[in-house]
Amino acid sequence: MIEQPKSSALSEQIKSLIEWLASYGGKDTGGVTRLLYDDAWRSAQRAIEAKMKEIGLAARYDDAGNLFGRLEGREAAAKVILTGSHVDTVADGGKYDGAYGIVAALAAAEYLKNRYGAPRKPIEVVSLCEEEGSRFPLTYWGSGNITGVRNRESIERAADAAGIPFEQAMRGAGFGLGRHPRPKRGDLECFIELHIEQGEVLEREGRAVGVVSHIVGQRRYEITVRGESNHAGTTPMRWRRDAMHTAAELIGLLMRRARADKTGLVATVGRMEAKPNVGNVIAREVTFSLDVRHSDAETIRAFCEESFGECEAIAAEHGTTLEYLKWMDEPPVAMDERLRRAAEEVLEREGISHLTMTSGAGHDSQIFGTFCPTALLFVPSRGGVSHSPAEFTETEDLERGVRLLIDLLHRLAY
Amino acid sequence: MIEQPKSSALSEQIKSLIEWLASYGGKDTGGVTRLLYDDAWRSAQRAIEAKMKEIGLAARYDDAGNLFGRLEGREAAAKVILTGSHVDTVADGGKYDGAYGIVAALAAAEYLKNRYGAPRKPIEVVSLCEEEGSRFPLTYWGSGNITGVRNRESIERAADAAGIPFEQAMRGAGFGLGRHPRPKRGDLECFIELHIEQGEVLEREGRAVGVVSHIVGQRRYEITVRGESNHAGTTPMRWRRDAMHTAAELIGLLMRRARADKTGLVATVGRMEAKPNVGNVIAREVTFSLDVRHSDAETIRAFCEESFGECEAIAAEHGTTLEYLKWMDEPPVAMDERLRRAAEEVLEREGISHLTMTSGAGHDSQIFGTFCPTALLFVPSRGGVSHSPAEFTETEDLERGVRLLIDLLHRLAY
Repeated sequence: MIEQPKSSALSEQIKSLIEWLASYGGKDTGGVTRLLYDDAWRSAQRAIEAKMKEIGLAARYDDAGNLFGRLEGREAAAKVILTGSHVDTVADGGKYDGAYGIVAALAAAEYLKNRYGAPRKPIEVVSLCEEEGSRFPLTYWGSGNITGVRNRESIERAADAAGIPFEQAMRGAGFGLGRHPRPKRGDLECFIELHIEQGEVLEREGRAVGVVSHIVGQRRYEITVRGESNHAGTTPMRWRRDAMHTAAELIGLLMRRARADKTGLVATVGRMEAKPNVGNVIAREVTFSLDVRHSDAETIRAFCEESFGECEAIAAEHGTTLEYLKWMDEPPVAMDERLRRAAEEVLEREGISHLTMTSGAGHDSQIFGTFCPTALLFVPSRGGVSHSPAEFTETEDLERGVRLLIDLLHRLAY
Repeated sequence: MIEQPKSSALSEQIKSLIEWLASYGGKDTGGVTRLLYDDAWRSAQRAIEAKMKEIGLAARYDDAGNLFGRLEGREAAAKVILTGSHVDTVADGGKYDGAYGIVAALAAAEYLKNRYGAPRKPIEVVSLCEEEGSRFPLTYWGSGNITGVRNRESIERAADAAGIPFEQAMRGAGFGLGRHPRPKRGDLECFIELHIEQGEVLEREGRAVGVVSHIVGQRRYEITVRGESNHAGTTPMRWRRDAMHTAAELIGLLMRRARADKTGLVATVGRMEAKPNVGNVIAREVTFSLDVRHSDAETIRAFCEESFGECEAIAAEHGTTLEYLKWMDEPPVAMDERLRRAAEEVLEREGISHLTMTSGAGHDSQIFGTFCPTALLFVPSRGGVSHSPAEFTETEDLERGVRLLIDLLHRLAY
């Protein structure tokens, strides 16, 4: 059992680190905007680089703009224990999303170095350059470069809303020029990410930490119902081929089936467009989105196939036709069992309440998860609010997460 | 039993009159655009005025732009048998909507005058200036002026899409200046309108003429469902307050209830808007239209009240709230029973198949119906298509309608 830092000092440190990082790209709204390679992003990375050096970590960038702070290990051949999260934000996002994982890693590395000296294996703190996809139509640029699932080909035609090509923005920030090492890593033992939940599960269940077992798989569809437009007054109900009625029955069916699942499946219809979308005209066409997520790919497949079978029967009864466009089909990603057990042992011993859960949202850990053993650990988000200036996590919850990270890194690296 | 015109001659006459009137405002699409007081409208009214004079009718306008052609009666104190329809069209509308009622009245008056001479009671053919509401946000300007439900106050702030005030457009066409008599009439015995069905009932049922018993009443609502936006991945189904799910269940319920009604009720949800309308975000608000029509006001009221009761229960179960904005509540209008019976007697005697039906769409007869005894008579619309260049009625159906009108006018006026 390791010796932990004093609670009051750690609380103060974490609170001030959160505010410090939020000051780069801070907005009048109380939110933060740091988009990949922009001025706020650059000043944030420079500040983190300075902080790493101040702590006594060896700081370096890779050629994509990921920033690493290394606490050298005593064993020459040992692979790296990597921990951190992403430095970019959505537009007017919160202070915690991504940032918390970076500042927690900085605080943990500083404490371990000062209290226990050099570890057996190297520990690296990482400030990943990009995860959100909020500037360019591309996500996971940071973790993707490190793991090799993203490269220069991924960005060939990408440009931001102002028309600035990805390549130009990258070069403007000093990356993609070969000045820094290539991003792809072959020396990682594992990746540990501490992140806010961005959901309400921990808060509602009254638990301090979530140990993620899987990042859910997702299927996304555009479903189009085609019927026939007609006059709302002169067309008897029995002759209608009403795309809106069909769509309503389909959405009702999908939602009732999702509610009936007790294994954590979620299904969402968030978007709908009707044509001609006029109150006194029967709709000839309705298109709606369907987003289905679960930790088990087979459950997603079965949900879709069985539901769509029932959907076809409804459409046939209404004289309408259906078209399904599946534009996303991402498999679930399992987190490493050994790391999960290690985290759970720490939590039990420290008396911190916790919950094994899935992550319904994507994270860098999803990219690392198929590349090296990965752990994703959640702290509560008040009201589940994220991607908003109202994003908030209690300081004591932030502190509990850092204590967990300190202990876990000590186990793995010392 | 009166002597009818020769079939071949009447067919030719009706066909050529339809094409003649369609040439004023005719488009390359095969459709017609005559908007109140525009150039096409003015040239159409002038052409009809000339035709009235040619037939031997005394032509005059009222100060709203309605055009009357009078076949004088022998009895000085007799009230007027009025027949016709509206001369305006929707943008790129068909050749039959409104126009058929005018040309049928012209052909009937011409035949009766030539064959039977002066009637006992005066017959007036009317080309009503406006019904569609396709230029200004106001409908029934023609029949409304004659019956007194529309007047100068109705148009005070009205302007067309180009910003031209109603008053200016009216004066530009030579009306609203006091040059013609005031439109309000006190001398009408009845109004008879021949019109295309604009629905598929006659065609599907294989009947030549529809005798309208009622023009349906209508209620129109905007229904807003309010829930809570949340992340599609991190919010378990049981905690959702999903406005889209509620809206889908409500629409499904309303449509199933409408389908279950066997007395001719129709209900339509043609428009829907979701907020934020993003695929991976649970909708916080959904607004949809509801259009309910029936010939009996009590049936409409009961449908809405009973359905809304069930809607509230669904919303309560989903943790969402509902708001109903009722922005239209027009009572049904009964057509005159004596005129209906007279029409049915003619149809029986002539061996023309017919159907007693409601009108699901509004017509000038709806305005006249509460002012004087009114008859509305339908001929089939191929495929139910209207307000389109594809609008079409077989010549033999057009001819049957005119024969009916000739006989009816003879019964009433001679």
